[in-house]
Amino acid sequence: MQLTVDLNCDMGESFGAYTLGNDAAILPYVTSANIACGYHAGDPAVMRKTVELALLHKVAIGAHPGLPDLAGFGRREMTISAQEAFDMTVYQVGALNGFVTAAGASLHHVKPHGALYNMAAVNAGLAEAIAEAVYKVCPDAVLYGLAGSEMIKAGKRLGLKTANEVFADRTYQPDGTLTSRRLPNAMLTNHEDAIKQVVRMVKEGKVLSQQGTDVIIQADTICIHGDGPHALEFARYIRQVLENERINVAPTYSL
Amino acid sequence: MQLTVDLNCDMGESFGAYTLGNDAAILPYVTSANIACGYHAGDPAVMRKTVELALLHKVAIGAHPGLPDLAGFGRREMTISAQEAFDMTVYQVGALNGFVTAAGASLHHVKPHGALYNMAAVNAGLAEAIAEAVYKVCPDAVLYGLAGSEMIKAGKRLGLKTANEVFADRTYQPDGTLTSRRLPNAMLTNHEDAIKQVVRMVKEGKVLSQQGTDVIIQADTICIHGDGPHALEFARYIRQVLENERINVAPTYSL
Amino acid sequence: MQLTVDLNCDMGESFGAYTLGNDAAILPYVTSANIACGYHAGDPAVMRKTVELALLHKVAIGAHPGLPDLAGFGRREMTISAQEAFDMTVYQVGALNGFVTAAGASLHHVKPHGALYNMAAVNAGLAEAIAEAVYKVCPDAVLYGLAGSEMIKAGKRLGLKTANEVFADRTYQPDGTLTSRRLPNAMLTNHEDAIKQVVRMVKEGKVLSQQGTDVIIQADTICIHGDGPHALEFARYIRQVLENERINVAPTYSL
Amino acid sequence: MQLTVDLNCDMGESFGAYTLGNDAAILPYVTSANIACGYHAGDPAVMRKTVELALLHKVAIGAHPGLPDLAGFGRREMTISAQEAFDMTVYQVGALNGFVTAAGASLHHVKPHGALYNMAAVNAGLAEAIAEAVYKVCPDAVLYGLAGSEMIKAGKRLGLKTANEVFADRTYQPDGTLTSRRLPNAMLTNHEDAIKQVVRMVKEGKVLSQQGTDVIIQADTICIHGDGPHALEFARYIRQVLENERINVAPTYSL
Repeated sequence: MQLTVDLNCDMGESFGAYTLGNDAAILPYVTSANIACGYHAGDPAVMRKTVELALLHKVAIGAHPGLPDLAGFGRREMTISAQEAFDMTVYQVGALNGFVTAAGASLHHVKPHGALYNMAAVNAGLAEAIAEAVYKVCPDAVLYGLAGSEMIKAGKRLGLKTANEVFADRTYQPDGTLTSRRLPNAMLTNHEDAIKQVVRMVKEGKVLSQQGTDVIIQADTICIHGDGPHALEFARYIRQVLENERINVAPTYSL
Repeated sequence: MQLTVDLNCDMGESFGAYTLGNDAAILPYVTSANIACGYHAGDPAVMRKTVELALLHKVAIGAHPGLPDLAGFGRREMTISAQEAFDMTVYQVGALNGFVTAAGASLHHVKPHGALYNMAAVNAGLAEAIAEAVYKVCPDAVLYGLAGSEMIKAGKRLGLKTANEVFADRTYQPDGTLTSRRLPNAMLTNHEDAIKQVVRMVKEGKVLSQQGTDVIIQADTICIHGDGPHALEFARYIRQVLENERINVAPTYSL
Repeated sequence: MQLTVDLNCDMGESFGAYTLGNDAAILPYVTSANIACGYHAGDPAVMRKTVELALLHKVAIGAHPGLPDLAGFGRREMTISAQEAFDMTVYQVGALNGFVTAAGASLHHVKPHGALYNMAAVNAGLAEAIAEAVYKVCPDAVLYGLAGSEMIKAGKRLGLKTANEVFADRTYQPDGTLTSRRLPNAMLTNHEDAIKQVVRMVKEGKVLSQQGTDVIIQADTICIHGDGPHALEFARYIRQVLENERINVAPTYSL
Repeated sequence: MQLTVDLNCDMGESFGAYTLGNDAAILPYVTSANIACGYHAGDPAVMRKTVELALLHKVAIGAHPGLPDLAGFGRREMTISAQEAFDMTVYQVGALNGFVTAAGASLHHVKPHGALYNMAAVNAGLAEAIAEAVYKVCPDAVLYGLAGSEMIKAGKRLGLKTANEVFADRTYQPDGTLTSRRLPNAMLTNHEDAIKQVVRMVKEGKVLSQQGTDVIIQADTICIHGDGPHALEFARYIRQVLENERINVAPTYSL
């Protein structure tokens, strides 16, 4: 059987006069784009252009809803209710879907952003609310979430297609969660180590935790970072290695 | 032949802790609701609740996109480009459509708000951009605009269904435009006069201008104001009079 | 010795087209006004008018900085850093101070709002940052905070004047904190009970906790709510009772 | 007599995760910094850091208030009232003044930004309102405005210190206004031509209009652009030429 994995990247994070990221350069190497929806980043012009750019590169288009915190880039946790999580997901997914429809395309997936992603990974109530929003607005979309997290479980309960996301450059705990960024060794700074971890996750469904134990993990999609000085180089590299390993790189559920 | 006219009202203009308007009380008397989309008023929770309330009252649901100016309630003109008008319309219509879809309903119309409405009435470029946004996101929606204005013309050029909007309580100029609010006599403050003007516009397709000349006008939908001390009373009254005159009150294109 | 207590009320919480509260009616009964600074509520026009209104009533003017969350009215906790708390306090206090200076007055106090107030009551790092912001922008201002909380301690460490705030309508725990609103019995809904609690806090420096034990508490200023159906009635009532008890009602440090 | 001119540059235009401009590199070459106040650009953290950076370089600190339009970078005209212009200037100048005071410094000047600057140059009512805001919040600050414009006239009427601003890289009309950017030849793209124009404005008080006539112009301060590929190079160059010409480069009213 042919192994397949998706390479996703956050995109469309520019805003007004402000440019962030390097979307056009990264797009040739990824298979799905998570496009910001105006809450943590992005604006209507950026959303339109990013949708068009993704189509040009035949990359699957996803909505990337976040917390309403442009100043904090959606990275500051906020104590929102499940109802608020539902509402802000419907709003943002709907807005991006407007541009997708206007471009004659269709929405492939939804991936929560930043603090919303992290909260939904562990909070079943928020995860349920986000999954329900996706289910009600675009039931055919794939729900992206941290591999094995509450987000994935909530999507499955509703019958949504889901994609377990893994990180090349983050280290893991024995329970399959990411090592907190506040701890040392949260990141794999060496490209070789990151690649090896990813390839093993895809091929063996396992990752070595920081504590030295093997953890079972499902790797449907790999998160690639679009900014940082080595982002482009790493994207090109990981794509090449995956292809060398005869792993099919394609959007999830793209058969 | 049976005359038909729509009664529309701006709704969902509350925001966060702030309540505005009296939607639940007005809904029984109108046939279509223009729901704010978060730019000039409204927020995701308000949008969801207003969509549900409109459905409960079997009132046609419309998107009411405005300028990105919550502090100014979308009433301050901004020098936006046609591209910006297109983008902000797609964004807001898409966002409201998210809630409409989530509620299992469908979007009936789009009516620009405030300064965006006024600019689109006279600026063909902006009107074209707004009409194109509606056409690309929801080609079956009815485009509401000032009777005979550039907005209506742009919608017709694209093959959209359109609804010519008239005002009960505003006076008219010989060219069919509204008397500027900066001038005296811009408003008809007497309910009887307002009703008479509306009935004549619907039955005869004519309105008496401030200069004493008759103006040809098409009245597909009548704008009812939802706030102000006498809003509810006037809504009930105009509805009663129209029915007494055997004019069918229903959403446009609702056959 | 003459007992003195301040009655404070949150004000200036309207925004754009939205009106909230009943400032003009409440002002005759309070001695200090906490004016929103545009982050959780308020806008420049509202700030100017509220400053002028407070001056007219000879009520002490305070800045009421909150979290940058207009949609949530500053009531949703956000994981901000101490540096962010410092920066947003300087910004908002500075902005309000602009209007105070323009009106030829001077700023009397600063009281954090909502979730920022609650977080600063228990988080020493945030409290320190807010106190430092006040100290650097207006060292003569009085810092208002929950009686006995980290906010008060931080202000004292910096040599700021401080005012311990108590609540008439909230119940207390044995450690002097407020009973969480998520618990039953968090509120004293009976006006008589609320008044008795307040008078005892002022006269005896004690409050009976929910667990039946007496708690030592310092009551420099009493928080009066400006909205709700009975706000005005209660403000009038508490003012009357305090005067009957021969307690001087005046802004803190107003000698 | 020693000729003196100020070199000013817009700064602190980053926002949250977004970086704009090259403040640290430009600061050594300019004598005054116009710091964004959070409406068109900037946020509290950026304001604090930019104030500190300006102090480090001994550059005079100014507030740079703009229209409330982050998405449009304050460049889209809005139909605001004089009262709104007053209020938004008080708010923003007050906010920046908070950071200036916190840093133990004092505010040197105020320069409106973008569309607010352009509107205030020709609209006496807006100019008057902005000047009055400056007068009431910081009467010792210098008001920067387009040379000879309504902004300067309004400042003078109120007794404010004023600085006539000229542009190195823009061409002029016979009435002393700038050639509209919508017209060809609005810009001087050649550095040599720009420098010559500036030196003549400073030394002779004259500029050659696009129509070939000489225009009397007062050049108190020269606007340097901080972004663009050649900004730094041009700043260094103009500074060098002015010093070679034995023109003193210093903040206005800095004696």
